[in-house]
Amino acid sequence: MEFAAVMELSGLQKQRSSYIPELPLCLQCYLKHYRIGVIFCGRQSPGGHNIVCGLHDAIKSHNPKSTLLGFCGGTEGLFSQKTIEITEDIVLSYRNQGGYGMLGRTKDQIRTSEQVKAALDACEALKLDGLVIVGGIISNTDAAQLAETFAVAKCRTKVVGVPVTIYGDLKNQFVEANVGFDTTCKVNAQLVSNICTDALSAEKYYYFIRVMGRRTSHVVLECALQSNPNMFILSEEVASSKLTLFDITKRICDAVQDRAEQDKYHGVILLPEGLIESIPEVYALLQEIHQLHKKGVSSDNIPAQLSPWATAFFEFLPPFIRKQVLLSPESDDSAQLSQIETEKLLAQLVETEMNLRSRVGTYSGKKFNSICHFFGYQARGSLPSKFDCDYAYVLGHVSYHLLAAGVNGYMATVTNLKDPVCKWSCGGAPLTAMMTVKRSQGPGASSIGKPAIHPAPVDLRGKPYQTLVFNGEKLLMDDLYRNPGPIQFEGPGSDSKTITLCIEDQDYMGRIKELQTYIDMVKKLVKPGCSQDVLKAAVSSMASVVNILSLMSPSTKGQSSL
Amino acid sequence: MEFAAVMELSGLQKQRSSYIPELPLCLQCYLKHYRIGVIFCGRQSPGGHNIVCGLHDAIKSHNPKSTLLGFCGGTEGLFSQKTIEITEDIVLSYRNQGGYGMLGRTKDQIRTSEQVKAALDACEALKLDGLVIVGGIISNTDAAQLAETFAVAKCRTKVVGVPVTIYGDLKNQFVEANVGFDTTCKVNAQLVSNICTDALSAEKYYYFIRVMGRRTSHVVLECALQSNPNMFILSEEVASSKLTLFDITKRICDAVQDRAEQDKYHGVILLPEGLIESIPEVYALLQEIHQLHKKGVSSDNIPAQLSPWATAFFEFLPPFIRKQVLLSPESDDSAQLSQIETEKLLAQLVETEMNLRSRVGTYSGKKFNSICHFFGYQARGSLPSKFDCDYAYVLGHVSYHLLAAGVNGYMATVTNLKDPVCKWSCGGAPLTAMMTVKRSQGPGASSIGKPAIHPAPVDLRGKPYQTLVFNGEKLLMDDLYRNPGPIQFEGPGSDSKTITLCIEDQDYMGRIKELQTYIDMVKKLVKPGCSQDVLKAAVSSMASVVNILSLMSPSTKGQSSL
Repeated sequence: MEFAAVMELSGLQKQRSSYIPELPLCLQCYLKHYRIGVIFCGRQSPGGHNIVCGLHDAIKSHNPKSTLLGFCGGTEGLFSQKTIEITEDIVLSYRNQGGYGMLGRTKDQIRTSEQVKAALDACEALKLDGLVIVGGIISNTDAAQLAETFAVAKCRTKVVGVPVTIYGDLKNQFVEANVGFDTTCKVNAQLVSNICTDALSAEKYYYFIRVMGRRTSHVVLECALQSNPNMFILSEEVASSKLTLFDITKRICDAVQDRAEQDKYHGVILLPEGLIESIPEVYALLQEIHQLHKKGVSSDNIPAQLSPWATAFFEFLPPFIRKQVLLSPESDDSAQLSQIETEKLLAQLVETEMNLRSRVGTYSGKKFNSICHFFGYQARGSLPSKFDCDYAYVLGHVSYHLLAAGVNGYMATVTNLKDPVCKWSCGGAPLTAMMTVKRSQGPGASSIGKPAIHPAPVDLRGKPYQTLVFNGEKLLMDDLYRNPGPIQFEGPGSDSKTITLCIEDQDYMGRIKELQTYIDMVKKLVKPGCSQDVLKAAVSSMASVVNILSLMSPSTKGQSSL
Repeated sequence: MEFAAVMELSGLQKQRSSYIPELPLCLQCYLKHYRIGVIFCGRQSPGGHNIVCGLHDAIKSHNPKSTLLGFCGGTEGLFSQKTIEITEDIVLSYRNQGGYGMLGRTKDQIRTSEQVKAALDACEALKLDGLVIVGGIISNTDAAQLAETFAVAKCRTKVVGVPVTIYGDLKNQFVEANVGFDTTCKVNAQLVSNICTDALSAEKYYYFIRVMGRRTSHVVLECALQSNPNMFILSEEVASSKLTLFDITKRICDAVQDRAEQDKYHGVILLPEGLIESIPEVYALLQEIHQLHKKGVSSDNIPAQLSPWATAFFEFLPPFIRKQVLLSPESDDSAQLSQIETEKLLAQLVETEMNLRSRVGTYSGKKFNSICHFFGYQARGSLPSKFDCDYAYVLGHVSYHLLAAGVNGYMATVTNLKDPVCKWSCGGAPLTAMMTVKRSQGPGASSIGKPAIHPAPVDLRGKPYQTLVFNGEKLLMDDLYRNPGPIQFEGPGSDSKTITLCIEDQDYMGRIKELQTYIDMVKKLVKPGCSQDVLKAAVSSMASVVNILSLMSPSTKGQSSL
């Protein structure tokens, strides 16, 4: 018999020959040309570029004919369909570089129905198979809603989010760390440590340092772990203990006095920029001001319309702070935290109190001197650390695999980050699983009713915070300053990770226990006698949990596990 | 004959055997036990510790019995004779570390007759052969006067100064660079570059960054060379062109307007902290305020006693600046530059002017937004760069050799710094050769009459500045930002040096020409017909010059060349 001879085919045979056998979704990527869009949402974060680079390399290595489009100027570029094709050359010049210069960014939101419509139109017009949204809690909440809208509209574009924020507040069971947090903390910790060194050499100033980080205090916590300053105050502590401005001032003054008794007249105090909002009376004042802003009252006219209580407190504040709290709020209703000089407010209050104590004779040490610093915009534009470069690049690859697997409304995740890269686990989790509905209550609460990804506050029962609290007295009195030095790209230190990440992860058994507690609570809440609705919700939620767990567990080999 | 048999010695022979042959000074160090003191004067500077380490290693390697004493708490430790012996253990824990934590520092001066007397008493009581003074222009001026006093008092202690200052203003024909300047510029340039990256990503803010550096602008110049911001303003430019506050504001506004025409609403502007003193009208106001301070008028009462002109200008300034210019001056009569927020003053003036231009219709772009930063205390506590570690360690060794050579009132110097360490040339130069007498005239001038080492201003005709001026238009308009990244200790970038040092040194032939000009000027000034006094001064000065040149030139093999 002759092999591979050209056969004459019957009509049916001819028809059959044109049929291309089907492949499961997870294998289709090897054949399909993908058209994928990527967009930077929200504030720039070191490592952001590497997500695009990873996405590009993954797409091109699977099929060189696939296309990656970058939206120029953030969501504005999405709405106006302004794109550039990401080429090898672009990747080469932005790989491992800081900022969002490759594509830029503008507004943070894809929220109003016009915005969502414009996004839908763009994805359809550009025939995108997938849209990768790079951003923090707000952008990923938007990504979830976009995914939902696209699915309803039968749009072919799948949406995947990537956790990128210098604030480190997009944390949950699926997400261990955010791209940019490592770099930001390292740059800030380097500077905080330099200030500690300076304090110890000069021995005459108290340095009040306010660190960027929005409402949560993850950056301050990590910097405190890295640098061991004398004191740090977290927004979460203040909110949970309901400390007033007077309480905080007194606490610092007492520390200054204790140190003076050991003849120490220097110190370093770290504050998060969100602190100001977490102080109850300031929060109440800010709420009144924001309400008046919403009514269209101009900043100049607001003071006259405050309630008597708020007026009294407003008048108590130094003039520079008065001007700053009157600024109109940000898009997410928070105050313009970067513009409010909380460090100067506290330094001034402490100075006044120390002078008073001197006069009445309860303090007999040298005059209190302070220097204030704000570590804000100088960190987020940094060259990304090796960790952020690797993490972001891997997330870029994972995003592609999620899109190729056909999932919609997922976040790309990488776990086991504390181990070397070769041991990292890649996966994805539904954005909706990270969303909750919160009622507005007290400082830090967001808008009412709608499900959203909320900023994860610092866990005051967690090991990172507890470690510092445990050593608090020694840190305060003994100047156990630590200097991690600048970010290194080669040699010793280049593989370092945030202490938060390393400590938290050691708490594996603690989490198993926590899981057991939750399971017990579900059992208690849903037992014979509970309402049909509660039971339904429980079954549906647990099914979703089991589904996610199956997808994530290597042993079950789920379709979208990678 | 039996060799080395024990001989019986006559009386004369015995006497002779006890005589130890004399050695020239330069060889005595191998036998002598030295007692040397070292003191940190003035503000802490990265690398300072390595001078002590180098000094220790040099002393001990020549004779392990020699002693190095460190004075605790700067000049206060000197006056009160409070010392610790520097041991191997101390060296090991402070080598390559930032700050002045090993010995601390307090006041800057050894100037009044009581202070000089206390220093003399300390050196005699501690039987010091040498005293190494680590500091900047003020401390080295004091070192010169101390050396003179010690010589007159026949005190055996020789004094050597080491050029250490983050401001980089101790520059002259003998001194190419100061310990700490490299690190400070690198830390600041890293942050400035991060801000540039941020500006380019956010595209909506003008960043006004004030950089520490006292009266001169060397740090700003180097940061501008490293980071290529859109604009920079040097105190020296402003002083030399007599720019008013209005001129500077107008210049920035015109730049903002030009950029707006290209649809650019972001930018980075660098300012030295000394800028405020170099603006003629501010300088005049500060002079009035300082005079009133000297008369004992309290800050609160000063405004009422200002001249009508000064009052008008004072009232024109925003309230926060008014408060800051009223602060009592520093020990060297300069204003408290680190406390005056010049960046906020300019940002506010520019905003007012841009709003005005908008209203009258000469500017039609978007609203001007600014963010202000002060890069001060976060740099000088940094871990020192490799360059500063090496340079300081070598200077420590050189200090020992100068003391061992028996010279008094010299500064340890290392030249050819732009080349690898193996090619550096070590030497010393008389401190008096760096001193001049200046009349107080205009901004930046020091006290009258006494010879002193004066801060070297940025040379506006020098290559580093001219390079930036030449590219000024492109830097302003085209965002040619450059990011040197954080200080590296291993791998690429770890051997980098300041651009100022590298460019300046390339100007060798330029200097030869400059020398020729000076020689010609001397010839013109001192020709037959000139006065006996001028001739005497010329002969004496030229003899001193020839002497120094002989000492420095390798071919002449002078006693103190190393």
